[in-house]
Amino acid sequence: MCDELTGGGEFDFIERLRRRELARVTKAKHSSLTTHHSSLIRGIGDDAAVFRQRAGFDTVITADMLVEGVDFRLEAGWSSPRDLGHKALAVSLSDVAAMGARARFCLMSVGVPRALWRGGFADEFYRGVRALAARHDVRVIGGDTSRTPDAVVVDSIVLGEVRRGRALTRGGARPGDQIFVTGALGGAAAGLKVLERAGVGNRRPGSRRGVSASAPTVSLTRAERGLVRRQTRPLPRVEWGALLCERGLASALIDLSDGLSSDLAHVCRESGVGARVEASLLPLDPLLAASGVNAEEALKLALDGGEDFELLFTAGPRKASRLPREVEGVPVTRVGEVTGERGKVRLVGGGRARLLRPGGFEHFGRA
Amino acid sequence: MCDELTGGGEFDFIERLRRRELARVTKAKHSSLTTHHSSLIRGIGDDAAVFRQRAGFDTVITADMLVEGVDFRLEAGWSSPRDLGHKALAVSLSDVAAMGARARFCLMSVGVPRALWRGGFADEFYRGVRALAARHDVRVIGGDTSRTPDAVVVDSIVLGEVRRGRALTRGGARPGDQIFVTGALGGAAAGLKVLERAGVGNRRPGSRRGVSASAPTVSLTRAERGLVRRQTRPLPRVEWGALLCERGLASALIDLSDGLSSDLAHVCRESGVGARVEASLLPLDPLLAASGVNAEEALKLALDGGEDFELLFTAGPRKASRLPREVEGVPVTRVGEVTGERGKVRLVGGGRARLLRPGGFEHFGRA
Repeated sequence: MCDELTGGGEFDFIERLRRRELARVTKAKHSSLTTHHSSLIRGIGDDAAVFRQRAGFDTVITADMLVEGVDFRLEAGWSSPRDLGHKALAVSLSDVAAMGARARFCLMSVGVPRALWRGGFADEFYRGVRALAARHDVRVIGGDTSRTPDAVVVDSIVLGEVRRGRALTRGGARPGDQIFVTGALGGAAAGLKVLERAGVGNRRPGSRRGVSASAPTVSLTRAERGLVRRQTRPLPRVEWGALLCERGLASALIDLSDGLSSDLAHVCRESGVGARVEASLLPLDPLLAASGVNAEEALKLALDGGEDFELLFTAGPRKASRLPREVEGVPVTRVGEVTGERGKVRLVGGGRARLLRPGGFEHFGRA
Repeated sequence: MCDELTGGGEFDFIERLRRRELARVTKAKHSSLTTHHSSLIRGIGDDAAVFRQRAGFDTVITADMLVEGVDFRLEAGWSSPRDLGHKALAVSLSDVAAMGARARFCLMSVGVPRALWRGGFADEFYRGVRALAARHDVRVIGGDTSRTPDAVVVDSIVLGEVRRGRALTRGGARPGDQIFVTGALGGAAAGLKVLERAGVGNRRPGSRRGVSASAPTVSLTRAERGLVRRQTRPLPRVEWGALLCERGLASALIDLSDGLSSDLAHVCRESGVGARVEASLLPLDPLLAASGVNAEEALKLALDGGEDFELLFTAGPRKASRLPREVEGVPVTRVGEVTGERGKVRLVGGGRARLLRPGGFEHFGRA
C-alpha cells in the first residue's frame, strides 16, 4: 500500500511522476492525438484513475507479476532497474497486442526493499517504463509502491482498446488455416543461458552485498550480448497485433511468452483443433548461430524457450495472402498449418513427425 | 508471470477459477443484472480480459500492493489466507468507492512461496476474494500468479464505473463545506496493536517453521477480537461512495487508508483549502473503550491510525442537510468544516486548537 515507504520518499516520487504526466497531458491537448484515443479523465494523484472508453471500442486489460529471483535478477551484468522497467511493461504490452488491441494506459505496482529504494532504484525503473510507454503512446496513470522484505516485485497492468467485438482470442483457429509467427525465435531463452553461464544466477535475491563482485567473469561476444538483450529488453509486437485486428487478418492470436510448443497448444485447446509445424520453417534467431548454438539446441530453444514475446497467429489461406511481409521491420513467417486433429501438435522435420508436447518432445514416429 | 508455478498447479488453478466465473456469467445472463453494468466480453483464459464500458459512464481503476511482513502477517492468530483475500480486495474496493464509483471487475495478482502454494494457500486466498466480490457484485476477470522466494505479495486491481464526468475527487472541497466521516474510527489501528501485543509480530516473513507455535499466548477479549477483525477484514464503504456520487451530495471524497490526519491533509492540498476538526465529534470505534483504550490514545488512533477504510467527504450546507443518517447500517458523522486557511488542518478540543499534521500533532496554541 501506498504509504509503506516512509520518509516522504514515496509521496514525493508519486508527485514527481504525476507532474511529468500532467505536463504530457497538457502537451497532448495541443496535438491531434487526444481525440483518437480512450481519454484520460484523471491520472495519478487521487484514490483511483479515471478514463473514458472511446465509443465503439472495448477495453482490454492484463496484469503480469514479475518477481526477483524467479522472473529476473538484478545482480550486476544481469538486468538493470531500467531494463526491468522496460521488460515489465513489454510483457503486458505483448498481452494486449495478443488481443489485437492498442495499449493506451499502464499502472505499475512495485515492491522494493528499503535499501534499493534509497539507492534510486525507483527512478531508474520508471525511466525504463516511461521510455517504452512513450514509444507506444501509452500513459502511466497509476499503480502502487510498497516496501518488501527482500525481493523486488513488479505487477504491470496495461489497458488497451480494440474495436467493439473484434478482440482476437486464442479460440478462432480453423482446420486449414495457416500458422504464422512474427520476428525470430529462441533468442530470449538463449540469452538467459548466456547469463546463467556467465555465473550471475546463483545468489539469493535481496542480498545486496558483493553485488559488483558478481559481474560476469566471462566476457561476452557481440552476438551473446545481443541474446542477453532479447532476454532483458524484449520488444513487444505492438504494431503487428493492432494491424492483424484492424485488417481482420487473423483467426486466432497469442503471444509467445511460454514458448511455441506451449502457446500453440493453448491455441489448439481453445480452438478445438490441432496443428502441424514444420521445423525447417521456424525463424530461428540469427544470433543463435552467430553465438555458436548448434542446430538441435536452437530448435529446442525456438520451440520451448519462451519469453520471445513474438506473436503467433492463424489465418485462412485468402487472408494469409494479404499479409504484409513485414511491419516496422519485423517480418512474419509461415511455420505450419492448423489441422482437425484436436489437441495434437505435430512437428515435422527430416521426413518424420513428432508429437510436440508443451515444453518438450514426446512419442516419435514416421510422418 | 503466469507459468512460474510449476507442476501444472497454477494452470489448473486458473482453469478452475475460469470455470467458476463462466458458471457465474451464464447464470447472470438469465438475470436482469447484466444490462445494468459495463459488460464482460472475455474473462480469465486468454492473453487479457475484455470488457465494454456502459454508455454514459467512465471507468475507474486502482491497484494496491500488499506485502507480507510489511502490510500483513500470515502467522497463526494473525491473518488467514482467506482474511488476506478479503482485505486485498477491500482496500481496492475502498479506493473505487472513494471516487464515487461502483466496483465491477477485479484482477488479482499473487506471488506465493512454493511451500505455501502447495499447502492450498491460493484456494483459501481466492475464497476470501470471491466472497467479498460476490457481496458487491464484482467479477474476478484476471490477474497473475507467480512464485516468490519468501514473502507473499498481492496486487489487487479493481475497475469500477461512474457516470460520465461525475467521479468525486479530493479536489472539490470549498470553504464553508462541512466534513463528514462514515462509520467509526481507530479500530483497525487498535486491532494492529492488539496483534502486536499478542506477540505474533516479530518473526521474519517467509519463515514457515514453528508457525503454530507463534499463536498468540495472550487470550483476547471479545472486544479485542472485534478490533483485530477491523484490521484483518475491513469493510469498504461501497454503498456510501456510490450514493454520494449518484445523489451529487459530496464536493470532495477520499477513503481513510492512512488516517484522518493524513487523508484530510490530502483533501486540503488538492482543494486548496484548510480544515477544522472537532475532537469531540470524532466517531471513535466503540470497541476502543470496550477494550480499555483510554481517551487520549483513542483520539490518537482515530486521527493517525489508518486502515479504517471509512470514507471522508465534504458537502456544502444545503447538501449536508440531505444526507441520510445511515446507509446499510453505516452511520455518517459530521466532524468539522472546511476553512479558507489553505493547507492548515486544525484540531479543536477542550477550548484549544492544535495544528494537526499528517500522522501527528504539532505546534500547540489557544483556539
